[in-house]
Amino acid sequence: MQNFDYCTPTRLLFGKGVVSKLPEVLAPLGRKVLLTYGGGSIKKMGLYQKVKELLKDFEIVELSGIQPNPKYDPSVLDGVRLCKENGVEVILAVGGGSVLDCSKAIAAGACYDGDPWDLITGKVQTVKALPMVDILTLAATGSEYDTYGVISRTDTNDKIGYGHKLLYPVCSFLDPTYTFTVSKWQTAAGCADAMNHIMEQYFTGETTLMNDGFCESILKSLMVNGPKCLENPEDYTARAEMMFCCTLACNGIVAQGNSRSGWPCHGIEHALSGYYDITHGVGLAIITPHWMRYILSEKTLDRFVKYGVNVFGIDASLDKWEIAREAIDATAAFFASMGIPMTLREVGIDDSRIGEMARHIAETEGLEEAWVPLFEKDIAAILTASL
Amino acid sequence: MQNFDYCTPTRLLFGKGVVSKLPEVLAPLGRKVLLTYGGGSIKKMGLYQKVKELLKDFEIVELSGIQPNPKYDPSVLDGVRLCKENGVEVILAVGGGSVLDCSKAIAAGACYDGDPWDLITGKVQTVKALPMVDILTLAATGSEYDTYGVISRTDTNDKIGYGHKLLYPVCSFLDPTYTFTVSKWQTAAGCADAMNHIMEQYFTGETTLMNDGFCESILKSLMVNGPKCLENPEDYTARAEMMFCCTLACNGIVAQGNSRSGWPCHGIEHALSGYYDITHGVGLAIITPHWMRYILSEKTLDRFVKYGVNVFGIDASLDKWEIAREAIDATAAFFASMGIPMTLREVGIDDSRIGEMARHIAETEGLEEAWVPLFEKDIAAILTASL
Repeated sequence: MQNFDYCTPTRLLFGKGVVSKLPEVLAPLGRKVLLTYGGGSIKKMGLYQKVKELLKDFEIVELSGIQPNPKYDPSVLDGVRLCKENGVEVILAVGGGSVLDCSKAIAAGACYDGDPWDLITGKVQTVKALPMVDILTLAATGSEYDTYGVISRTDTNDKIGYGHKLLYPVCSFLDPTYTFTVSKWQTAAGCADAMNHIMEQYFTGETTLMNDGFCESILKSLMVNGPKCLENPEDYTARAEMMFCCTLACNGIVAQGNSRSGWPCHGIEHALSGYYDITHGVGLAIITPHWMRYILSEKTLDRFVKYGVNVFGIDASLDKWEIAREAIDATAAFFASMGIPMTLREVGIDDSRIGEMARHIAETEGLEEAWVPLFEKDIAAILTASL
Repeated sequence: MQNFDYCTPTRLLFGKGVVSKLPEVLAPLGRKVLLTYGGGSIKKMGLYQKVKELLKDFEIVELSGIQPNPKYDPSVLDGVRLCKENGVEVILAVGGGSVLDCSKAIAAGACYDGDPWDLITGKVQTVKALPMVDILTLAATGSEYDTYGVISRTDTNDKIGYGHKLLYPVCSFLDPTYTFTVSKWQTAAGCADAMNHIMEQYFTGETTLMNDGFCESILKSLMVNGPKCLENPEDYTARAEMMFCCTLACNGIVAQGNSRSGWPCHGIEHALSGYYDITHGVGLAIITPHWMRYILSEKTLDRFVKYGVNVFGIDASLDKWEIAREAIDATAAFFASMGIPMTLREVGIDDSRIGEMARHIAETEGLEEAWVPLFEKDIAAILTASL
């Protein structure tokens, strides 16, 4: 078991109606609020109006239009400018992972005099950030319970993960009813995203019995509740279970003491959505089974066997290779069963830039240190298999 | 799924050698430290000397001799007095759950002008507490990751659980090597204690798939690693897994969204160790199977079946009642296999005060609101069956 240093100080307020506590949570943090959100969905469902009503005694500045794979320019830059111009004291992010990720970069950028890109790349150390609170409307990334954000820069095709312990949300409001209107596409992608977060931590050299059980439990719950959400979008219990699974899938609580895995599928997917702006969870679902097939070997076999037996209930008495291959096929079949296109071509990606992406990934994502090290040729092979 | 409000801000520094970070963790909290500990075990293993060496630039006041089932008088009262007399700024608890529990009561009492008992009983609301840091030397109670402490008062036989969100440790140092010298008796009792913490949360009306899996994973890990620790007390991996299981077993992370269970075995055991000063984990191990047999009914059957199949691997195709009874028997057999005496008589408790204890429990522990409500006669029946 590896040494670790773990702390997640975020308060989770979970359930129907919890958003009524918003004023009492925000008040100690400040009266000048930057309200960040994406497109019009929070207006359509009435959440925008509810927040404005709850915060009628606060001063609100708004940043809207934050896109999926949130953009450094204009969103982060606009947000930072608004904070500085208006003396914003606290950020309230209302939306999914993209809005939250963008808001974290704004929170840090607002307390820094130089170009916020310096903080995102790590050229300059983050030393201060505005407090952030969020109301989550999409179960997927786990940004509501971690320090990370992923920011895209269209001029360079960079998509960079940025994290700092100052960027934990102070409080995340998790009301599953706000996910009732999430589309089938985004529900399936969110489920695949969270499942991949678990797989990225589960497939590694050293784990613990407890962690393996935690990971398997989240996967099994998502595989039951994800499809239920697709079938009946207003199934409160299914939406609630899926939401909390996603929240716990990405903050590291299921992998403390494990050896480092390197998060290889994320390393690869960041380039896909950096170059092609595809839905992150869909990109992960496409790549994951091909990455699994590529790394299956004598060294990794037992891990896939445990996964197959404990997650998919495959008969433990079968041949180990058979179990492993069946488990990988079952992974792909599950993603497909949720309506996710399982090839890159279906999401508009052909072979024209695979070499360029593989080189970019190899140079920037550190996958030579993953559990099974991946170099440029390995990454290109996985991308090609995913076409 | 029930609404919840969850936040555990404690930092966990886990692994061999992490205690070297003690000065940098304590420094921002203060230079005047109350060092609390129990008997001489931390001196025997050299930890006391190491702490003194690490903190040579701090002012240290000491409170030693904190007993198992920590006592209001003298320990809490002495600690509060020492803090006030010396202007203590931070408490460093070095020991097991009893030392930590006692230190939490001191942390709050030091910031209150009246009788600290008012805070423990809840007569007066806790509004301030000194920060507390701990170095854990016994895997068991989970006090290193929760807000709770249990304090005993010998003059009234009261043993009261006391908790407040201000009482989360700021940082817990978890070095499994400090548990190498824990006796077989305390190792077994610690394992049973943590297992019971899980059972208290698992056996309730409404749960989630994820939570059930989390609970089952911790139980299975403890049932593998507890016996390994008994067999080879210096098995680092087993001590480490057991330690982290215990840490996560009691702060509620495995039961957010579940309905309230009422923690009935703890309610009953508090009186046993309040009246007879027995080892808490042993008391729990004795009571738990009898409580299970007492509440097994049509209403609770399915929960016991799930427990039997998923934790003990009992054949799911058997008759449900058979699975449930086999699971309860297996629970008792596991505790016994660790060398725990499984009757109250073996720990010096006869039938002479059962009526008195049952009345006391019924009046103070609120077990009429447990998942299966327990009144005085039910409590007396469980105690009698445990003789």
